Amino acid sequence: MTLSSTFERLTAHKPQLEPGHVWLAGSGPGDPSLLTLEVLSALNQADALVHDALVSQEIIDVAEQAEKFYVGKRGGRLSIPQGDINTLLVKLAKEGRKVVRLKGGHPYVFGRGGEETLALAESGIPYRVLPGVTSAFGGLTSAGIPATMRGINGAIILATGFAAVSDDRPDWQALARTGQPIVIYMGLTHMEATVADLLAGGLAPDTPAALIENATLPQERTVVATLSTLVEAAARETIVSPALIVVGGIVAMRERLAAKP
Amino acid sequence: MTLSSTFERLTAHKPQLEPGHVWLAGSGPGDPSLLTLEVLSALNQADALVHDALVSQEIIDVAEQAEKFYVGKRGGRLSIPQGDINTLLVKLAKEGRKVVRLKGGHPYVFGRGGEETLALAESGIPYRVLPGVTSAFGGLTSAGIPATMRGINGAIILATGFAAVSDDRPDWQALARTGQPIVIYMGLTHMEATVADLLAGGLAPDTPAALIENATLPQERTVVATLSTLVEAAARETIVSPALIVVGGIVAMRERLAAKP
Repeated sequence: MTLSSTFERLTAHKPQLEPGHVWLAGSGPGDPSLLTLEVLSALNQADALVHDALVSQEIIDVAEQAEKFYVGKRGGRLSIPQGDINTLLVKLAKEGRKVVRLKGGHPYVFGRGGEETLALAESGIPYRVLPGVTSAFGGLTSAGIPATMRGINGAIILATGFAAVSDDRPDWQALARTGQPIVIYMGLTHMEATVADLLAGGLAPDTPAALIENATLPQERTVVATLSTLVEAAARETIVSPALIVVGGIVAMRERLAAKP
Repeated sequence: MTLSSTFERLTAHKPQLEPGHVWLAGSGPGDPSLLTLEVLSALNQADALVHDALVSQEIIDVAEQAEKFYVGKRGGRLSIPQGDINTLLVKLAKEGRKVVRLKGGHPYVFGRGGEETLALAESGIPYRVLPGVTSAFGGLTSAGIPATMRGINGAIILATGFAAVSDDRPDWQALARTGQPIVIYMGLTHMEATVADLLAGGLAPDTPAALIENATLPQERTVVATLSTLVEAAARETIVSPALIVVGGIVAMRERLAAKP
């Protein structure tokens, strides 16, 4: 069977993107080969593509026939207010465009996708949400760290490090007291305070921890440390956004799982 | 550009599956259109496919040229002991086969993938792990529930309900005390005890909760309840495995996000 016919067969049951509809699509953690078939199909159908900074250019280029709207933000800092993005999506839909709103990772996991679909729902715009591989699990895998491991954890926590001063700020001490591994998105800016909270919550200073910069991309770097040396390690290795922070026993599996030559 | 050439371009940077290598691949939550390009490519290359019960037949059929090895388990109950699966993977690799080990969801998220790659690493077998969309996030999205929502949560917890009596059993009361939403994989068997623990941990009885059966498949069903009525709702609606349990304020977004006709 050819690739095209396989692709057709596996996506044939899905609806087509119609004029006036908006699809929020997740592009995954960065590596274009982590795109889902459904999202690739969406990009092929779009005539308007609204995208972020964290989406790879190779993925944007798939939508060759679409007009591109860049609404970039980085590290959680908005260059365009969220309300303006919502308004743009509604406007494009009302113009009868076939709109794909492409976001890094999964649109409903720390992507503010819920605010966008709420705006669409309130304006009566039909929409769908297309999952992507979320950055935490794509990134951990790429770095050689299992998200769960028998004998280590029966749960895993994903948290945003950015909302440090907002109402959504997670109670880091309570998270620490669960004893479960934590993966932090956008955690660099407030890392020092977050680490202090996790220690205050009772996590041991020698808890394994890692930083994964540019996860799944060719320039990916992983730095392994402990909870107490993490801030220093990030500074020494000049880790920059986008980066994931991982804290917990699963990090120690990385060395054990490294293929023996 | 044709679909085939786009596919080639987006996956060209990835290694080929070589004889004697094993790739653990995630098939996603069920819907074949949620397969990643990388996993589709892997299935095209495999000459031996080792797969679970939770993988859709349409996805298995992609590997038309591969010999199939069924090592099904369901609801966490092994029909074949994990050790035998590990042994089979090592044996096939040593025979020089191009092995794909296909698992539901993401292989490193509650999939026991780490035990399999540990066995491969210890036997000197080269391997890779290919992410899939994890069932929690694919399932929530399909059910119309955002995993995170500004004003509701800055973290989300994924947990396994099955390991109820093992060492990995999460401390449900501690998880409850974080105040963050919890998504439980394989939670039906021990649901009553889990719910009791979450209530004991301080979650309000009227905390929104939902059951998502056969997430992303045509027969998907979602039942919305509260934490205190969840067990009764599951019985009344005869919810069966595979099913996700979701507990937390994000469940209440489902109604608000429903597209207005």
